[in-house]
Amino acid sequence: MIVRKKAVVLLSGGLDSTTILAIAKHEGFEIHALTFFYGQRHAFELQAAKKVADTFNVAKHLVIYIDLKIIGASALTDNIDVPKTKDIKQIGKQIPVTYVPARNTIFLSYALALAEVLLSSDIFIGVNAVDYSGYPDCRPEYIKAFEQMANLATKAGVEGLTKIKIRTPLINMTKEQIIKKGLELGVDYSLTHSCYDPSLENLACGKCDSCILRRQGFKKAGIPDPTKYVLQSS
Amino acid sequence: MIVRKKAVVLLSGGLDSTTILAIAKHEGFEIHALTFFYGQRHAFELQAAKKVADTFNVAKHLVIYIDLKIIGASALTDNIDVPKTKDIKQIGKQIPVTYVPARNTIFLSYALALAEVLLSSDIFIGVNAVDYSGYPDCRPEYIKAFEQMANLATKAGVEGLTKIKIRTPLINMTKEQIIKKGLELGVDYSLTHSCYDPSLENLACGKCDSCILRRQGFKKAGIPDPTKYVLQSS
Repeated sequence: MIVRKKAVVLLSGGLDSTTILAIAKHEGFEIHALTFFYGQRHAFELQAAKKVADTFNVAKHLVIYIDLKIIGASALTDNIDVPKTKDIKQIGKQIPVTYVPARNTIFLSYALALAEVLLSSDIFIGVNAVDYSGYPDCRPEYIKAFEQMANLATKAGVEGLTKIKIRTPLINMTKEQIIKKGLELGVDYSLTHSCYDPSLENLACGKCDSCILRRQGFKKAGIPDPTKYVLQSS
Repeated sequence: MIVRKKAVVLLSGGLDSTTILAIAKHEGFEIHALTFFYGQRHAFELQAAKKVADTFNVAKHLVIYIDLKIIGASALTDNIDVPKTKDIKQIGKQIPVTYVPARNTIFLSYALALAEVLLSSDIFIGVNAVDYSGYPDCRPEYIKAFEQMANLATKAGVEGLTKIKIRTPLINMTKEQIIKKGLELGVDYSLTHSCYDPSLENLACGKCDSCILRRQGFKKAGIPDPTKYVLQSS
């Protein structure tokens, strides 16, 4: 019997997290995917996450319900409008209202707990610091600090059973490069969902930061964008 | 109008967290207490937390329901027996099965989110590295690493609005010193609950690590222990 190393993969069902799942799979890991329902308005991404997990035949897909609404203060969980961007050059210059307080820290903390139980050393997260919205918890210095903390936090770490690595293969890639990498590894991007503010029919708005970065990525890659948008113009 | 600085206080309803709440109050903070229901077998502590929060007239007491059972692997959340200690000298020498994977990291991550929303810089946690069970996430080096990570994680941090301090006033105190400090600040320890394995009537077992450390603390302090135990002998 071949015993495969286990990886915890944070899977939102979006373009980036689906690509890291494909990368982890390609590296030979047994995949334990972790998805959060946190009261986000784009809860449709949970369906996307499930389809992606099924397609990649993961060992386990855990969906954890967490209450970030009770903490509030984000356009993704509260009754605050998601901004529609006119100028792509403005994306990432200021931290937008779609920022969810300490979200990646909370997600990575759960991933750390699961990694400890599985005796896994590899936590994959699809953060990106190039074509991104300017969130502080996507930057390399943040990831490095989390990793240092993680290695002091757990019994498995203290006892020398694991040495946690926060794996961020996309952190320095452009959206174009991410898409090309994913296609190389067999990702079907029509299964994925990026929009922060989908219509009632779950069509992507095409105008939020996330849609704009995604559309530009496909355009630059010279690959047809399989996303269904409310407005097909641009 | 006097605007008081806000503090987030992690409140389990036990002896230590109640004492830090009293300390934060004494320092003049407006208290935002945060309690977690995480499937722990000693859920009775939630009632204790509520009584403590009421007594200290906190500005807000949030109870967050989180699912650690889904991750498992602890005697506090799973169907694993809580060990009963025969020899107090053994406590803290090995990390016991009551350890919950990454628990303090998850708790502090939520506290960080709440602190950001409140624009608070002070997060109080009642960790103790003297009379303690040997949990890795109670040690000063862990706390320091969490603080460093926290200051890179948030919008409020990046924009210079807050500089997070993880406040651990009990970390180097013995249980005896903690109890004396709390009594000085008016804590009524009969409201608090420490036992990991209470009876159906919510009497403390008197024999788990947590009960033993608590009993010894009162004994050394020369103060009657107000706890109701299943067995009063010792």
